[in-house]
Amino acid sequence: MTVDLNSDLGEGLGSWSMGDDDALLSIVTSANVACGFHAGDPSIMRHVTQQAVANGVAIGAHVAYRDLTGFGRRFIDIDAATLQDEVTYQIGALDGFARQAGGRISYVKPHGGLYNTIVTHEAQAGAVVAAVSAYDSGLVLMGLPGSVVLRLAEEAGLRTAHEAFADRAYTPEGHLVSRKEKDSVLHDPGAIARRCIAMAAGEPIEDINGDQLTLQPDSICVHGDTPGAVEIARQVRQALEGAGVPLAPFAPAA
Amino acid sequence: MTVDLNSDLGEGLGSWSMGDDDALLSIVTSANVACGFHAGDPSIMRHVTQQAVANGVAIGAHVAYRDLTGFGRRFIDIDAATLQDEVTYQIGALDGFARQAGGRISYVKPHGGLYNTIVTHEAQAGAVVAAVSAYDSGLVLMGLPGSVVLRLAEEAGLRTAHEAFADRAYTPEGHLVSRKEKDSVLHDPGAIARRCIAMAAGEPIEDINGDQLTLQPDSICVHGDTPGAVEIARQVRQALEGAGVPLAPFAPAA
Amino acid sequence: MTVDLNSDLGEGLGSWSMGDDDALLSIVTSANVACGFHAGDPSIMRHVTQQAVANGVAIGAHVAYRDLTGFGRRFIDIDAATLQDEVTYQIGALDGFARQAGGRISYVKPHGGLYNTIVTHEAQAGAVVAAVSAYDSGLVLMGLPGSVVLRLAEEAGLRTAHEAFADRAYTPEGHLVSRKEKDSVLHDPGAIARRCIAMAAGEPIEDINGDQLTLQPDSICVHGDTPGAVEIARQVRQALEGAGVPLAPFAPAA
Amino acid sequence: MTVDLNSDLGEGLGSWSMGDDDALLSIVTSANVACGFHAGDPSIMRHVTQQAVANGVAIGAHVAYRDLTGFGRRFIDIDAATLQDEVTYQIGALDGFARQAGGRISYVKPHGGLYNTIVTHEAQAGAVVAAVSAYDSGLVLMGLPGSVVLRLAEEAGLRTAHEAFADRAYTPEGHLVSRKEKDSVLHDPGAIARRCIAMAAGEPIEDINGDQLTLQPDSICVHGDTPGAVEIARQVRQALEGAGVPLAPFAPAA
Repeated sequence: MTVDLNSDLGEGLGSWSMGDDDALLSIVTSANVACGFHAGDPSIMRHVTQQAVANGVAIGAHVAYRDLTGFGRRFIDIDAATLQDEVTYQIGALDGFARQAGGRISYVKPHGGLYNTIVTHEAQAGAVVAAVSAYDSGLVLMGLPGSVVLRLAEEAGLRTAHEAFADRAYTPEGHLVSRKEKDSVLHDPGAIARRCIAMAAGEPIEDINGDQLTLQPDSICVHGDTPGAVEIARQVRQALEGAGVPLAPFAPAA
Repeated sequence: MTVDLNSDLGEGLGSWSMGDDDALLSIVTSANVACGFHAGDPSIMRHVTQQAVANGVAIGAHVAYRDLTGFGRRFIDIDAATLQDEVTYQIGALDGFARQAGGRISYVKPHGGLYNTIVTHEAQAGAVVAAVSAYDSGLVLMGLPGSVVLRLAEEAGLRTAHEAFADRAYTPEGHLVSRKEKDSVLHDPGAIARRCIAMAAGEPIEDINGDQLTLQPDSICVHGDTPGAVEIARQVRQALEGAGVPLAPFAPAA
Repeated sequence: MTVDLNSDLGEGLGSWSMGDDDALLSIVTSANVACGFHAGDPSIMRHVTQQAVANGVAIGAHVAYRDLTGFGRRFIDIDAATLQDEVTYQIGALDGFARQAGGRISYVKPHGGLYNTIVTHEAQAGAVVAAVSAYDSGLVLMGLPGSVVLRLAEEAGLRTAHEAFADRAYTPEGHLVSRKEKDSVLHDPGAIARRCIAMAAGEPIEDINGDQLTLQPDSICVHGDTPGAVEIARQVRQALEGAGVPLAPFAPAA
Repeated sequence: MTVDLNSDLGEGLGSWSMGDDDALLSIVTSANVACGFHAGDPSIMRHVTQQAVANGVAIGAHVAYRDLTGFGRRFIDIDAATLQDEVTYQIGALDGFARQAGGRISYVKPHGGLYNTIVTHEAQAGAVVAAVSAYDSGLVLMGLPGSVVLRLAEEAGLRTAHEAFADRAYTPEGHLVSRKEKDSVLHDPGAIARRCIAMAAGEPIEDINGDQLTLQPDSICVHGDTPGAVEIARQVRQALEGAGVPLAPFAPAA
């Protein structure tokens, strides 16, 4: 029994910073690294991949729509062929830095608007799967359990990683409670850590109604975009270690 | 005795086209492919690399300053560390497409303003050399004979390629006659072809004064950004073949 | 009885050209000028507005989604408040050039994906209307007859302009036949010109079924992105003049 | 005797923030507002101009090279004609927001790399002056005393504003001590405030050697990009008010 913690890293741009990449790289086991389309620039990508390799953190390409001003959060109705090429470009750019640092990317996690779109959008989901498969069929594709993109990835023979969120409430069906709803986000580090331990052990957590829900994620997402978030992530890691749950990347670099 | 013809390809952007990539890919032996910083987009990069691999054309990363509106022609006073990362990003992105097409990039040719700057600019030249060396020390770096960048590349143990220009007049010292001068550009396809044959054979050409000048380029640049330029390139290739000079990439993919 | 011809102008970018702006500026009476978001750059905007003022051509802001690589043709799910500001930015930038040239912009025509979206999308249509109203309630908003955006504009007290297309087939309901359908685009300059004369006179044209359909556009769009398109536009203008139909901007600068 | 405090505002981008615009808008009398080329986006521009008008703060266009990843700090060797158009574009875009908020821009302050370049670069300085003059010859151009740009502006009949820096050490000649030198930046709020009071009164300050230097700035720049900087700016304002020096924009909107 091991557990993987992933976080979105490298989301600054030039003079603008976001989050504390170095702190997170001492906490998580998998780094979703921005590739310059929603955030990130070449120097940030170089730094984060170097540190990830040094810390034994797995590197994932956090591919996104081309949308700096919108941080990649908006749906863009891009055709599948173009999207496939845009995803390939990002994977290649990040993998170049990973190779240069002595590592490799080992997975791909779509970001923001793209992540949400390909839960249901067949054409865009297929484009992402095609990009990953054509680039390196050994890469793992991370996404939301039950999503179209994970189904298509499995049909294409890709290994997939089911993601859960440490601080988000779930419906009885295992979907995320919308951020617009009350109590959709957990803030208590202790409660968040206990959930992570339960998920790592394959035991049920409480859904939004207080009933039991069993999630068996391959990776748990923790946030790092505020000082408070980093502290929560640190406490989650400490709690997991205290509970004797080893942390390890779900997709270590080959 | 072989000769290599290179040309700048993939310099469209989205709905904007430039040059006739497919025609050039049936003429040249080395393709300098734009990487999205001065021109080019992921779909163009995918198309050109696929065609290059299919045609046995070597693929070079045509790395540039980040400057779409200026087409990478303006000097930008970027610090060396940042420039190195920007070059790495472009190499990685293009290499991803090349690998996906079953090939590899085999050389790097800086574009436009960057190409000209690193003839003399030590810090930026060093940044380009460092990027190429760190990414893959087996890559060849193409540049202007006598430039700082080629000297630094050789000192760093990189293989270099000396470039000549099929249609440009040369000074007695072997420098390019400025485009602002009269007769700086040749327009007669026959004369251009004869020069290419001479250069391939290691024989002298006429400099701007009509005196003899021996250039021994590893690659000769032909242009393709106008219909007339493509036709000249085609005639150069036919003349070389007619003269029994085999065309072959100076840096075939491994 | 007068007729207005509009065309999309200034759609190059840096070293990339598109269409023949100068030729079109001698043909049309209203210029939809790209504002740098889907196409266009400051120097092109300066040139086109200067020529428009010199030729007595009305200037419209051809506002678009921020999407150079997609040429503004893709739907982007941007929230209304942000879209309003992005539209305002573009209007202001173009109006600066128009003022500098001694003119003013007199209308706004959304471009491409935005044009199509706000035929039905209430929130984005409202954002465009709000931007125009807040910037200058004397500006005219051009759009598709029957669209949500024109209804909202009229409710907001803006003057609107109904657009027709010189070379597109219409359904019996007055909608455009999809470009994917056979015969959706007319290519015969004579037929296109006759339709324009009919529309200018308030007389019916033939719909896709050959039945009569009366459109009463305030402006007719002609294309200029190919040499053939410019020639058709020229013939349309000559036919209108030959038929004694005066050409005049629907929204002359104040 | 009045004094003007200016600060660089609106330098976030999308999801990235920089500085505390609202706090600064309650302290300064002139706001240099980023126009989207080095920083800033339309929604930030709308917000800052609205608040500036509401607070009686003069609005200046903080025009810059097109360089988001470099924050406009790098020299770009752009030709004068293109630079003029790029400056005009930015002025027009910001003025659109200012007009919409019921105000007007009243001055232009070049940013970062452009600010420094046109201290000595005749062609680029001339381009900035030409852009301002052609847009509105009533605008004031702010720059470094003794710079080429201010000389050319005066020759062109523009009103100029001499800028001093609240927290920077000066050489005996009145030049800024390089940031690379020791003691080039002052950190003591009290000392900074005393200097501002002296400058406002036309009295000498101490140069880097401790000798007396009289600067007579039209505006004093305070920084706001860190919480500490905002606090210093607040103390400077309080000290000026405590000393009975009225604060007022050097270029109030007409």
